Amino acid sequence: MVTRLSHFFLRTLREDPADAEVTSHRLLVRAGYIRRQAPGIFAWLPLGLRVKAKIEQIIRDEMAAAGAYEVHFPALLPREPYEASGRWESYGDSIFRLQDRKGADYLLAPTHEEMFTLLVKDLYSSYKDLPLAIYQIQDKYRDEARPRAGLLRGREFTMKDAYSFDYTDAGLEVSYQTQRDAYERIFQRLGLEYVIVNADNGLMGGARSEEFLHPTPVGEDTFVRSAGGYAANVEAFTTVVPAPLPIDGLPEPVIFDSPDTPTIATLVDHLNANQAPPAPGVAGPATDGEATWTAAHTLKNVVLALTHLDGTREIVVVGIPGDRDIDDKRAEVAFAPAAVEAAAAEDFENNPLLVKGYIGPWSQTGAVLGEESATGIRYLLDPRVVDGTSWVTGANIDQKHVHSLVAGRDFTGDGFVEVANVLPGDPAPDGSGPVELARGMEIGHVFQLGRFFAETLGLKVLDENGKLVTVTMGSYGIGVTRILAIIAELSNDEKGLVWPSAVAPFDVHIVATGKDAVAFDLAEQASASLEDAGLEVVYDDRPKVSPGVKFGDAELIGVPRILVVGRGAPNGEVELWDRRSGERETMALHEAIARLTA
Amino acid sequence: MVTRLSHFFLRTLREDPADAEVTSHRLLVRAGYIRRQAPGIFAWLPLGLRVKAKIEQIIRDEMAAAGAYEVHFPALLPREPYEASGRWESYGDSIFRLQDRKGADYLLAPTHEEMFTLLVKDLYSSYKDLPLAIYQIQDKYRDEARPRAGLLRGREFTMKDAYSFDYTDAGLEVSYQTQRDAYERIFQRLGLEYVIVNADNGLMGGARSEEFLHPTPVGEDTFVRSAGGYAANVEAFTTVVPAPLPIDGLPEPVIFDSPDTPTIATLVDHLNANQAPPAPGVAGPATDGEATWTAAHTLKNVVLALTHLDGTREIVVVGIPGDRDIDDKRAEVAFAPAAVEAAAAEDFENNPLLVKGYIGPWSQTGAVLGEESATGIRYLLDPRVVDGTSWVTGANIDQKHVHSLVAGRDFTGDGFVEVANVLPGDPAPDGSGPVELARGMEIGHVFQLGRFFAETLGLKVLDENGKLVTVTMGSYGIGVTRILAIIAELSNDEKGLVWPSAVAPFDVHIVATGKDAVAFDLAEQASASLEDAGLEVVYDDRPKVSPGVKFGDAELIGVPRILVVGRGAPNGEVELWDRRSGERETMALHEAIARLTA
Repeated sequence: MVTRLSHFFLRTLREDPADAEVTSHRLLVRAGYIRRQAPGIFAWLPLGLRVKAKIEQIIRDEMAAAGAYEVHFPALLPREPYEASGRWESYGDSIFRLQDRKGADYLLAPTHEEMFTLLVKDLYSSYKDLPLAIYQIQDKYRDEARPRAGLLRGREFTMKDAYSFDYTDAGLEVSYQTQRDAYERIFQRLGLEYVIVNADNGLMGGARSEEFLHPTPVGEDTFVRSAGGYAANVEAFTTVVPAPLPIDGLPEPVIFDSPDTPTIATLVDHLNANQAPPAPGVAGPATDGEATWTAAHTLKNVVLALTHLDGTREIVVVGIPGDRDIDDKRAEVAFAPAAVEAAAAEDFENNPLLVKGYIGPWSQTGAVLGEESATGIRYLLDPRVVDGTSWVTGANIDQKHVHSLVAGRDFTGDGFVEVANVLPGDPAPDGSGPVELARGMEIGHVFQLGRFFAETLGLKVLDENGKLVTVTMGSYGIGVTRILAIIAELSNDEKGLVWPSAVAPFDVHIVATGKDAVAFDLAEQASASLEDAGLEVVYDDRPKVSPGVKFGDAELIGVPRILVVGRGAPNGEVELWDRRSGERETMALHEAIARLTA
Repeated sequence: MVTRLSHFFLRTLREDPADAEVTSHRLLVRAGYIRRQAPGIFAWLPLGLRVKAKIEQIIRDEMAAAGAYEVHFPALLPREPYEASGRWESYGDSIFRLQDRKGADYLLAPTHEEMFTLLVKDLYSSYKDLPLAIYQIQDKYRDEARPRAGLLRGREFTMKDAYSFDYTDAGLEVSYQTQRDAYERIFQRLGLEYVIVNADNGLMGGARSEEFLHPTPVGEDTFVRSAGGYAANVEAFTTVVPAPLPIDGLPEPVIFDSPDTPTIATLVDHLNANQAPPAPGVAGPATDGEATWTAAHTLKNVVLALTHLDGTREIVVVGIPGDRDIDDKRAEVAFAPAAVEAAAAEDFENNPLLVKGYIGPWSQTGAVLGEESATGIRYLLDPRVVDGTSWVTGANIDQKHVHSLVAGRDFTGDGFVEVANVLPGDPAPDGSGPVELARGMEIGHVFQLGRFFAETLGLKVLDENGKLVTVTMGSYGIGVTRILAIIAELSNDEKGLVWPSAVAPFDVHIVATGKDAVAFDLAEQASASLEDAGLEVVYDDRPKVSPGVKFGDAELIGVPRILVVGRGAPNGEVELWDRRSGERETMALHEAIARLTA
């Protein structure tokens, strides 16, 4: 059925919405695709729903081709399964919790690993039932602290989440690869360029986990890649550990006065003003040969506060080269499952040995410099602080630093930790050369969950030998509404949206202009012919709307092909516009129809 | 793509689920369509999702044909719009309420009138934009006190809710009729017999409201119909008021001792044992000519407690013929928006003039019998208590009744009220003859909301004269998951489900039996041919499952046509089963394919 704008539920807006932070949000609201109902919560108008349905259909097709079956779980779920997995607690404030009239606890599910695990446990019991892949396309909830960027980070959003079930590791590998291949086809069909990045947590070892990122300078995620093919998100990047340096013959440490130098920048200025230039080989490994002091010569000691799962708070000191910062995401992964944050003022008050601005190497059993007392505070080092590296750093005494302090001779940490940020030029861990940092948007995630949920919730099957074995699972997610927003974010120009054909709300947007009935008659005929040929047509048949407004709406809405029926109508001529290139060609209607249906 | 049972996510169960109260719940769980997750909350398995999608598609088709456009609202909504309409409060315990991390109030929407109203207000401003009809198919939430009967009364359920917007009453009539027609087509396509019953509240006047009921003895709703075509739910039935009778010459009232007769039954026994038989014309109008006392001679005075919207509690006394009872649903409508319940013991304690078991006619300004004091308690009468009717009733004195008490002479109420139940044989209000009571299940509701929501939320448009007018709305609902359950409830036999073709999960269920590869090869060929012909095929290709189990599963799952490929396969012969009639015919495969694709 041809959709006629004279009746269609649509109102395009001239003004950008006041709360729109990103292009996709701005354009989707203005062009009448979505409408905000509450922070991070949107209603879908007919145009938006059509695009969403097309994305979902592509996903359904490829899931079916990958042998996955569709199910659908409730959004409102009881507490117990999430209690059993520990996530009722660990989600913290980021889930919506509620009680029913009897006081029973419920949540609005942010993801459904527990429920899928329990469903399979409920119904299946033998290795013969596996492998199994099931998925749903479903509305999920997350109580984001600061919902933003329109659909990119909403509180109610649609996800496709798939789960695979196998009883051997090799089976999981196959299931994982099948889903990964399906994801490649989905993104190819959606016309979304992607990079598959390693999302492993390298230090913790563990199973395969990869993110599909769309590379774009406006992306909110940073990832790391080398010309040689390495790609990982920053959390998964692992530092190449340099070889230790010889210690023999290195100068002895010297404590010096450094008043008012609590930051790396003030310390470096002080060094260049008051100390002889650094000798080759007596500072951090990245600094050889530099004639002036730089941040890379210094060792920055940062105090972090961990909150462990049992609620206890632990203070740790982390030593990283002074030209690097703590990367929050890497720190989060490095200390998981503990939560990590910067130490607060009261942490310093509670630990008087921590001399703020002048903290030096430390150990759990005593300060290296200053008083030799047991502190009980762990001191963890960046992997680059290998034996034989020489540093300028705090002396654990107010207003004093130390230089020529050598790792492995003058201090040793309680362990190493990957929390420093990745810098361009860092070597890729696979030897494929220096990395660069790029930005991208996450569009999908494939993840070997392994046996955690099956173990926790008791999902076992009998194997070929009649032995109960714990099932191993994979989890595969695509944010449907997020993908829609990303496509909108990438597919627009100053006039409005420019949808790729695969997800456009219609195939052709017909505009009849003028007051001449001939144009409207010809446009009717065009609409009917194109619909008969199987195309989805929106026809702007509004009788009293100016051509300028109609063209503006057509360009704002962004259907890829626009057919204008106006002045040339008496001669059977129409104009065919390509929304993306802006190209406009006059031709006979039958020619336009032939091209559109080609 | 042919669905193969060797891989499909399905497990049929031998046992009925312990908590299944109704057939549809029992069979949908056993046949692998749904799975309970919490009270009134279900997961949809692949088979169930397919049936649900078919029902939704029929609804979408007919909504499109009726010119309605699809939108989609969030389930999680802010309090404010529902606060403005008064429903945040009036829903009471029946909605799920929650707070986000900032303490803002939200609800899980049970219905979306407010949001649709606000959306149209947001986008539209002129009569030229109207009429408009928009709808959604969406998951809704209601915190039922006692979720029961599987999907028939769940706490999370899928609804199609449509709303129409007009700026004139005549426009609303047209929009209403259009949706009503669409509903008729939807139920016809679903193969669901229906009766359209008036759901007006007759006493309050008001706009049109009709329910679509499926008539069935196991229905949970009672409705009223006459042979002459009248149909209404019991709430909408209006009593035909009899003509007043002459009062002159009627005997005077006589108070008599009636110890231990606090109920109508004990009173009637007492009358027949102690009083002369009733004289013609001296008792209730339905009793003329009866030779013994019956309940219909008596006037039953019932004490009810109303809770008004402002929280105040009011006691009222209602007088109805003694052969009738208070109908809770009719009372609810009659006293709305006040809530109504039976008076509690403490209400009697607080009102000592109410002599329990012996209450007589009453008035706001004083008891008719006994003490002449102002009571402040309203006395409302059934419309059948017309002037000139003579009653046996309480004397407002403990252990005493009165007979020959005449309405209009000895007592007058403070008004009339429709709270008595409807009895078979009552005259239909449209003069179409006596009614009968029947049972049915509500399958749809069309309702002229009028201007309530538009007025409350400020939805106005400019009319032809540039004047702001309040929009008038209609609301049209179908419970998608409820309909699915009702179809399952009606479509089954002792072997399992028997789906109507329009909503069956597949068109054909192919069963290959035996160990002979020939059968499986021929079944493959049949599957491919039928799929090529556009049918949806499920193929039971499980290699090591017995024919008995396969047949049992096929009959339990309930695909209407079953094609068995087994012993006859070497001769190219198959068996075609009709699931509903049980008919089985042997024929050549090409003949079976021809029949199935006919």
